[in-house]
Order: sequence, then structure tokens, then C-alpha cells
Amino acid sequence: MTSKIIGVGNCIPRETITHLFFDQHVFLDEKGILLKDDNFLLSEKLQKITGIEERRYADKNQVTSDLGLIAAKAAIEDSGIDTETLDYIIFAHNFGDVSFGTKQSDTVPSLAARVKHLLQIKNNSCVAYDVLFGCPGWIEGVIQGHAFIKANMAKRCLVIGAETLSRVVDVHDRDSMIYADGAGAVVLECNNVDSSGIQAHLSASHTLGEKDYLFFGKSYNNESDKDIKYIKMDGRKIYEFALLHVPDALKKCLDNSGFSINQLNKIIIHQANEKMDEAIVKRFYKLYDKPVPKDIMPMVIQKLGNSSVATIPLLLTMILKGELANHQIHKGDVVLFASVGAGMNINALVYQF
Amino acid sequence: MTSKIIGVGNCIPRETITHLFFDQHVFLDEKGILLKDDNFLLSEKLQKITGIEERRYADKNQVTSDLGLIAAKAAIEDSGIDTETLDYIIFAHNFGDVSFGTKQSDTVPSLAARVKHLLQIKNNSCVAYDVLFGCPGWIEGVIQGHAFIKANMAKRCLVIGAETLSRVVDVHDRDSMIYADGAGAVVLECNNVDSSGIQAHLSASHTLGEKDYLFFGKSYNNESDKDIKYIKMDGRKIYEFALLHVPDALKKCLDNSGFSINQLNKIIIHQANEKMDEAIVKRFYKLYDKPVPKDIMPMVIQKLGNSSVATIPLLLTMILKGELANHQIHKGDVVLFASVGAGMNINALVYQF
Repeated sequence: MTSKIIGVGNCIPRETITHLFFDQHVFLDEKGILLKDDNFLLSEKLQKITGIEERRYADKNQVTSDLGLIAAKAAIEDSGIDTETLDYIIFAHNFGDVSFGTKQSDTVPSLAARVKHLLQIKNNSCVAYDVLFGCPGWIEGVIQGHAFIKANMAKRCLVIGAETLSRVVDVHDRDSMIYADGAGAVVLECNNVDSSGIQAHLSASHTLGEKDYLFFGKSYNNESDKDIKYIKMDGRKIYEFALLHVPDALKKCLDNSGFSINQLNKIIIHQANEKMDEAIVKRFYKLYDKPVPKDIMPMVIQKLGNSSVATIPLLLTMILKGELANHQIHKGDVVLFASVGAGMNINALVYQF
Repeated sequence: MTSKIIGVGNCIPRETITHLFFDQHVFLDEKGILLKDDNFLLSEKLQKITGIEERRYADKNQVTSDLGLIAAKAAIEDSGIDTETLDYIIFAHNFGDVSFGTKQSDTVPSLAARVKHLLQIKNNSCVAYDVLFGCPGWIEGVIQGHAFIKANMAKRCLVIGAETLSRVVDVHDRDSMIYADGAGAVVLECNNVDSSGIQAHLSASHTLGEKDYLFFGKSYNNESDKDIKYIKMDGRKIYEFALLHVPDALKKCLDNSGFSINQLNKIIIHQANEKMDEAIVKRFYKLYDKPVPKDIMPMVIQKLGNSSVATIPLLLTMILKGELANHQIHKGDVVLFASVGAGMNINALVYQF
């Protein structure tokens, strides 16, 4: 028995944010001192490291659950299922619904409950809950759905990842240029017919020394309200952490699946930094004494930025819908999903299509 | 195979809040009009309906994860386990960490990650995540832990429920007198030795018409900042909803367990309103044409208020530690756990000690 993805959908917000958006921002360092470089140069430097040219922001009248709903509807339509047959709606996010121009997270009722309401599902046995697990939250939601299926507590789960990081950025922090909005969703179903589906999974929480590598902290502008917090990260530490731990985690997960490195067709990894992802994959292949194959790792960070939990299902949808040049997934292909983020959490999933 | 509670712990904040605390509050109705009754009378009326005489508030320097940590430490000590053997830390809450005097929820990293960090757990394979499911979140966390155990993904899970509702109340809403702070936790373990542990469980999300019975909304004071939201509820609708749906859910869960109504020794139900709980249990027994047995339902709402996800594990700990007069749980006893809250979600668990 496996759990199989039978439908995918995403929501890529329309508003494209280029470097011009940040032109008038006053970027400061951690101590509140004005950065020497002008904003265009800062944006260029950031692009060189992270790969991010553009990112997308949700419309002002949308919140995270709205993006999640759009992705969910698309995944349901793609699967062809009756929504009343869903046993679970699992919504991964980290900041809840934050309305444009406000600072509070709204999480009551849960975002999953909001989506279920808007899908007009009548079946009260469909359990709607939210999971918070940093950027790896969506993969973790899939693993939890798989657990319910294995435990005979569910046959079909809708797993959504959505975030509007644009609503929690410090405009005085150049890292604000990294973050983006988006959503993705899949319908996961119990599969007793063939061997396709989830082959292996792995989750880890590194909290002993790494808890605050990604955190909610005050603005770099010392004159800002100290009680208002924003998403903050220690980029260097995250980079080093990811390089040290993610390749080993991926190897462990792949080895557990029984598939060999040569059978791997694609790596769909969370996109927070292009250079970091390339270095992770290089080290991963080095563990098998192999060079990185061409086109193994689709990247959309250049145009879509870091949309947290949304990135992986959003990207998967693009590939399966034929919207990404040079990247296809065929029946039988083995795909390694991987994510790293706040916690610090790491997870991975080996999946055969 | 079952999942068994091998340790319990709680955190009952020291600060007792009596009606005097609310003496100078300006209570308004939904339209912002001053309530006619004086505050003492309002407090007396509320006490008559809900049973709440007093409630507890966390210290000003504590946040939700701090209360959760205290309960977690107690549960771990009670279980006698090595913390490094935990496979999961599941933290149920709804509003994250809200520092005293501030309005923002802090959920990055997750509260589970914070607790894992403070417990100084080195084992990176111990997965720490948060679940949002309204007041029934803690029971849902136990059900999820049980799913991981059934799916052979875990042997031991720490399940925490903690909340500081005092940080999200509208001081102009008399319902603010209902809410309280607290935490409870259990260690759940795979049991292959005997038949004690979880016997049956049920979860439901009623979202079609009920999504906004409990919500995050603006203050009753029209002059307050419209962008700052507080916990709000439609008490009458919740009461009617609970009476209509909870007794049937409890019956379904008990019947699924194979135990008869006569074998039931205790009902540990979420405490938001004493009269509502009494009415639920009365209807539940009526479904079996039975009167409600004496001392079947321990109540602590009188002294502890509604502490959301914390109430049930907090109360369970009090009983098992012999801190509640007239209420004991003995080996072999069958206990029905039940909760209803934001979503609107309902869940239930039949457990044999």
C-alpha cells in the first residue's frame, strides 16, 4: 500500500515584483546602520547569490487561505474527485492569514477550516487542521496524510501549502527581497493497485543549537515599534546548516526507498537560495561519487522567489502541467522531494510517479 | 496494538483572577453600547451560566510555549522516559506565543521546536510540529500521535496543549471573563503488552455554516484600532451547535469502542461552559435512556476557566495526581475524552486505563 498524488494545483499570484519595487526602501544592517551599497546594487548582489530576479505578491485583497483555496480547487479539479470524499484537509503555513497593511496573524478558525468552508464541503467527517513546521510544512503535511492512510484513518487527503511572506517582511532588511507569496496543493489517495506513490520519507527537527536561525524578530530600524516582529534569518548559518545536514538526509531517504541514485529522475527542492540548492545537490551526488546530472533540479526561484511551504507543490504542478521548459515527469519516474527551513526542520520524500 | 498514556503533567498558572480584576472594565455590546448591568452583576450572571468563579493567567514574563514546557517537563518526569527516545513533539495551540502587552502571534519557529530546544533534546529524528484545530487541538494531537504509532512511524510522542487566551481577549467584551491560560501534556507510547490505551477515536469539522461561531474579530469598542483582532464567539450558536452534535459524536465513538455506556467510568470534557457540558452529558446519556451517573464528569471550570487546548490534559493530570476531590481513575477504568471548539471541530476518544 502506498499513498499516491492524484491531482495537483497551484496559485501563482499575478503581481510581479521586480527590483524597482525596492528602489525607495531604506535598507539597514542589524544595528540599524544604512547599508553602503545603493538598492540596485544590493538587489543585484542578492540576485547573484539567491538567483532571485523577481517574486510574486498576492493581491491586496487576498490572504493566505485565499491562495490556498485557489490551489486546492485546481488540485481537486485535476484529480476529478468529489470533494465530499475527502477525509482530511491539511493546511501547512507559518503565519496564518495576515491582511494587507496589518500585522496580526489570524488563525481562528484554522486556515484548513476556511478552505473547507469555501469549498462548501458538507461532509463533517472531513477533518480540517493546520500544521506549522517551517518551510518544510507542506512535505510534512503529505507525510501526515500518508500516516493517516497507513493507519487506515483516511483514504483521501487534500494537502495545501500556502504563504504570504510579503506580509511579514521588514522593509528595512534586504532579505525582504527574498520572500514571496504563493500556494500549491495535491490530492493524496490510498493506492492498493500498483507500487507508485510514496516510497520513503524522512523528517528531522534540529532545535538544540539551530532554533533561532529563522525567527520572528524586530525591525532593523531602531525607531520601529519593538513589539512588531518580522520574519528574520541568519542566512550564513542556514547555508552552512543546510550544506552540513541536507545531503545526508536525502541520501538516507533515497537509500531507505530501495531506489539507486541512477534511478533518480528529478529532485524537487525548496527554493530559498539557488546557490545553496546547487551546493546541496552537488554534495548529495558526491556521497555517491557521481556528478550532478543535467536538468535533475528544476528551479523557479529566479521568477517566483521563496514562497515557503508553497514552493514545492507549486513547482510540482508547473512540471506536471508542462509549464516548465526542459522538465517533465513521466510515469515510473522517481522524484526526490526535499525541504529545509525554520525549526530548523528538514524533510524528504522519495516518490515514484 | 494501542497507544497508551505513560506520563501526564500540567501547568496551572499561579495568578488567580477574580471578578475584582474586571471591576473597572468598560463592557460594551456588539454595537459598542455600554451594557446596562454593573460589572459585578455581569460577572455573577456569567458565573451562573458558565460556572466560572475564577480563572488563572500566566505570569507577564511567560508565553504559551513556556507553559507548555512546564507541562511537558512534568509529563516526561512522570513517565520516567529518557527525552532522547521521543519520536514526536506535537504542540496544540491556536494563537502561538503572544507576549504580554503585545498583539502579534509568534509561531516561527514552531512552539514544538521551542519546547524541544528548551528540553535540550539532541535527537534530531524527534519531529517537532504544531497543530491548529481550535480547542479540540490537544485531543487531535493525541489522535495524530496514535496515527504515527499505528503507521509504525513512532513509538513515543509528547503531546502538549497550551494557550494564553488572556493575551487575545477584548477587554470590552464580557466574554473575556471566560478565558484563561494553562497547559497540559502527556507522553503517549505504543503498547503491545495489554489492551489498555486508546480504544476508539472520532474527529469532525463542521465548517459549512459554523466556521465563524468562534473567530478573530475587532473590539466592541468602536474607537479601537479596526486592524487589531481578538478572540470572539457567538455563545448562543455554539451552545446550540454543541447540544445538537456533541452527544451523537460521543455515542458514535463509544459504540465504536465496543464498550457499553455502563462500563464508562468518567467523561473528561473540554470546559467552556458548565451548563453546556452538563446538558451535553445529559443528552448523551439520554441516547442510551440512562440518567447521568454521579461524579461521571469532573469539572474545574469554576476555578480555572476555559484554557482552550490545555483544559483536558490539565484536568487529566489533576485527577491522576489525586488533586481533585471525588474523582479518581483506576486501572481498567474507561474514560471518554471529548472536545468542541473553533472550526467548529468536535473530537472524542475512548481510553481504557
